[in-house]
Amino acid sequence: MAIKTMEELFVETLKDMYYAEKQILKALPTMVKKAHAEELKEALEMHRQETEGQVERLEQVFQILEKPVEGRRCEGIEGILDEAKEHMAEIENDRVLDVEMIGSAQAVEHYEISRYGTIIEWARDLGHDDAVGLLDQNLQQEKNADRTLSRIAKSSVNMQAAA
Amino acid sequence: MAIKTMEELFVETLKDMYYAEKQILKALPTMVKKAHAEELKEALEMHRQETEGQVERLEQVFQILEKPVEGRRCEGIEGILDEAKEHMAEIENDRVLDVEMIGSAQAVEHYEISRYGTIIEWARDLGHDDAVGLLDQNLQQEKNADRTLSRIAKSSVNMQAAA
Repeated sequence: MAIKTMEELFVETLKDMYYAEKQILKALPTMVKKAHAEELKEALEMHRQETEGQVERLEQVFQILEKPVEGRRCEGIEGILDEAKEHMAEIENDRVLDVEMIGSAQAVEHYEISRYGTIIEWARDLGHDDAVGLLDQNLQQEKNADRTLSRIAKSSVNMQAAA
Repeated sequence: MAIKTMEELFVETLKDMYYAEKQILKALPTMVKKAHAEELKEALEMHRQETEGQVERLEQVFQILEKPVEGRRCEGIEGILDEAKEHMAEIENDRVLDVEMIGSAQAVEHYEISRYGTIIEWARDLGHDDAVGLLDQNLQQEKNADRTLSRIAKSSVNMQAAA
């Protein structure tokens, strides 16, 4: 489609994010299942539940904007998730797999942190204050998830895998 | 390939990053050319030059590890760059295009910030202190580039495009 205004760019990027969150929601159960360390398994499962809420918040944003709830293929998240799957399939050691999954999950989080950060600025400039509040809740959850993964990596999983 | 140790995972992920930096180096000249605001054009050109140095630093890391300098296809960066290209092709307004390019470039930066952050932790755990120093120089440049893009977006480009 032809994008001529910031409003159109904002809505198209929202559709990207909606698609991205749904792809992440599909990918997380496999990661939960494959995680070896209990702490990691729990963190990924908690983030899966949070992601369900994030999808709902994005649906609310579409409603606020009076736009149909729809996704559009987001190659960014597809690439990051495909890469994660490929790496996971190559690893033959439980602890190394945990470490890799933490890294992959953090790449996903950072992609989302970047995209939410960007569209929140756009929403603010466009005067969509209700959308800003909802999108910022998603952003804060992604940042928390990233911090939790860093903590798990530093506290136990990395050291055990390098030993 | 079968990955059994953290050392192997570290080297494979370095290859990903090497491929990623080279893809970014290929993508940046088009962005420099398409940028409308002079400040953005200069920032992207400066980052292109920095990226050349980052590729060289990664080559030094391979040498320190006594491994051949080689890349491996990184779907993460490919997806992010493909998405950026697709969005850029759809936009029919110079200022909206600038705003979109800033967002796309920040998605690239965040991907790299995440991946460098991860492999620096791994390098530290594995005792590759010389590699840590080089990788951290790349990480700091990515963080700076991200901050510069945020500043440009906030100071001028977003507001003009939303007006």
